[in-house]
Amino acid sequence: MDVDIGPALDEVATPGVSQAALARLDERVERAHERIVTGRNAADHGYAALDLPNMVDVEDLQAAVDRLPAAEEVILVGIGGSALGAATIADALGSRDRLHVLDNVDPHGVRASLASASLEDAVVHVVSRSGTTTETLANFGVVRAAMTEAGVDWRERTLITTGPDGPLRELAEREDLPILSVPDHVPGRYAVLSPVGLPSAAVLGHDVEALLDGGRAAASTLSGSLFSCPAYAFGAISYALAVRGATVTAMMPYADGLETFAEWFAQLWAESLGKDGVGQIPARALGVTDQHSQLQLYRAGPRAIQVNLVAVAGGPDRDVPADALPGVGETTLRTIMDAERRATEASLAAAGRPCVRLELPRLDAHAIGELFVTMEAACMLTGALLTVDPFDQPAVEWGKRVATDILTGEDRSEPFDTPPTLRITGPE
Amino acid sequence: MDVDIGPALDEVATPGVSQAALARLDERVERAHERIVTGRNAADHGYAALDLPNMVDVEDLQAAVDRLPAAEEVILVGIGGSALGAATIADALGSRDRLHVLDNVDPHGVRASLASASLEDAVVHVVSRSGTTTETLANFGVVRAAMTEAGVDWRERTLITTGPDGPLRELAEREDLPILSVPDHVPGRYAVLSPVGLPSAAVLGHDVEALLDGGRAAASTLSGSLFSCPAYAFGAISYALAVRGATVTAMMPYADGLETFAEWFAQLWAESLGKDGVGQIPARALGVTDQHSQLQLYRAGPRAIQVNLVAVAGGPDRDVPADALPGVGETTLRTIMDAERRATEASLAAAGRPCVRLELPRLDAHAIGELFVTMEAACMLTGALLTVDPFDQPAVEWGKRVATDILTGEDRSEPFDTPPTLRITGPE
Repeated sequence: MDVDIGPALDEVATPGVSQAALARLDERVERAHERIVTGRNAADHGYAALDLPNMVDVEDLQAAVDRLPAAEEVILVGIGGSALGAATIADALGSRDRLHVLDNVDPHGVRASLASASLEDAVVHVVSRSGTTTETLANFGVVRAAMTEAGVDWRERTLITTGPDGPLRELAEREDLPILSVPDHVPGRYAVLSPVGLPSAAVLGHDVEALLDGGRAAASTLSGSLFSCPAYAFGAISYALAVRGATVTAMMPYADGLETFAEWFAQLWAESLGKDGVGQIPARALGVTDQHSQLQLYRAGPRAIQVNLVAVAGGPDRDVPADALPGVGETTLRTIMDAERRATEASLAAAGRPCVRLELPRLDAHAIGELFVTMEAACMLTGALLTVDPFDQPAVEWGKRVATDILTGEDRSEPFDTPPTLRITGPE
Repeated sequence: MDVDIGPALDEVATPGVSQAALARLDERVERAHERIVTGRNAADHGYAALDLPNMVDVEDLQAAVDRLPAAEEVILVGIGGSALGAATIADALGSRDRLHVLDNVDPHGVRASLASASLEDAVVHVVSRSGTTTETLANFGVVRAAMTEAGVDWRERTLITTGPDGPLRELAEREDLPILSVPDHVPGRYAVLSPVGLPSAAVLGHDVEALLDGGRAAASTLSGSLFSCPAYAFGAISYALAVRGATVTAMMPYADGLETFAEWFAQLWAESLGKDGVGQIPARALGVTDQHSQLQLYRAGPRAIQVNLVAVAGGPDRDVPADALPGVGETTLRTIMDAERRATEASLAAAGRPCVRLELPRLDAHAIGELFVTMEAACMLTGALLTVDPFDQPAVEWGKRVATDILTGEDRSEPFDTPPTLRITGPE
């Protein structure tokens, strides 16, 4: 994949980055790259993610999957990094309707997901590193109850991915379920190319090796200059725009199948960089749809947004009948989509708004694997430039403890005040 | 519905708003309210939206729908404001899987949507005010071709909602299709409670009168003080936070069924307020899921976010088996969801981040109608306070002309420069 940062230069955009500033920044990129490569080679915490495509034991993974009955559908029980990677793969590769993701505890949503799944035909994949994630354990309990009620033995069709200990591993061992391990030293949001994200891809019939090949291809481009490495180009321009005022980074793929990728990216970017008062706030958009929703703001609202367009060069197309579009005549949907994207790029440039283009040759397993690792390396670089640790998420732990305290009714491990109330009441 | 702005006060949050500042702001709210009410009563452009629940001719709407065959599914062809309202209703009321929305021109997505629909049983609703929207006309052409190929006469099952003239009205008249009119003086993003958003709700079996009742209930609360009107409370606190640095407003419903509402809100807020360099950039999140994705950033990233939580008080529930959650025991999914929301509120307050809570009594047609009009009135107020016109969208028109120029290959009505290129190339 290629990254074009030209539309974010100060020749065209405000905020924008000068060529001279990029050249200066490249010295810091080189030093950050050394740290990243050293970390990858030593399997240091976080950096180990970049070596996942080489480290994953595909035979082991396939053996665990092979213990499950053949299935066309997966019920994935996990939340955050334990769900978004698998969902991104399925969405991009066209099997999203066969992947039922239980990543929320809304009773409506859970009921709808279970109703849309064939309980007797699906396999269940449960993912939690700690094995204590409240939402995941609750939903897994609901799935077990629903299967039992449907006369299905959940034990025969459940695969667990978890850490070295915890309730989920104990349950899996007790029930003799196939178990895979969350990779050491890799935070969940960087763990898609591992037993966290790959088992459902395997069940759904996707090419796991091609996903890993793509990841390896991206890792192979890591070099000491933003001018020769797409990942670092994206990371460096994001950093440079952020410190010049782009508090928001909008990911806007021109492909329905990349909608979930934008969610995966939003987690990666938010949890990795949103600390110490810095970071970029991710916004998600979809081209061309959101041209009719967000483009007004992107062109004319606060000068605080970096817009990232994802262009997919090839793929199937569909004819538009000659009588459908007066003045245009015979055309195709992809022709329209490309024209709209080019118009949006021109439109943002004319308004002086910074834009970055990610270019994928097509939407397949190789390209998605490459995209994952490219964005992960970009995020590591931006973290290094912002001087934050891109691998922790300290601010979410507090709330998890409070939620558990509320649920168990125990003395509060984290005393907290209820926020003040100023309630304005409606008609009912 | 109620709105609680207490968690956005400066007693707890930075940026935050003091009680004294709210009292001062209330004088401007009173004047803005007078303009809004005058506009509504005179059916002035935009303001007329607030009177839609009284103006919609439900019999006329039902008569048009009754010309279609009975159907369980709707194929909705429209984009932006012509699609998001109907999709929001269907999502909230549980029929989203029977509403196939063609609001993008991605060949993959269009194929998947058409494959999931029963072409011989569905009805088609096409919405475009101008009747010239490229994406909508193209997709309508694709739908006609697909139905014809499937041996289905699209003429028998297509309803058109459009403006007083244009190609779509001409086609509808030529083919003797049922036609409904986009209401005068109401921009698409404010037009959900009209023949733009309601026909699909009617076909899908939802209570149109209850939607309108909810809208009327919200309109009835409009009064000259933010302290007595939920809509103005939301609009005023959003303005006050925006000018104090909250460049981003994150809509985070704790309900799967409100995910599309967050998209509808994102359009309303972005297109209405994102102009003259001001406005708030909408971000979308889902509780509790995005606690595991965005909360780190909301708590510890840039102090530039207003977080809006939507709480739904009632609804069906689902038991969690006693053995699922060690230490918690028997519980329900809704209990967990509520505990997580309360923990998130406490967590944001403890980190000093501003938060607003929207409280719905339940997820039904009345509540959704009320929510729409509340947010529309809030947006009008925020626009007045920001001194922008909340009813136009001038910045998107330029791009539309450029896209048409590219598609037709004609001389450019809007000359534009291709943005500069600085491309960093990957392994293929």
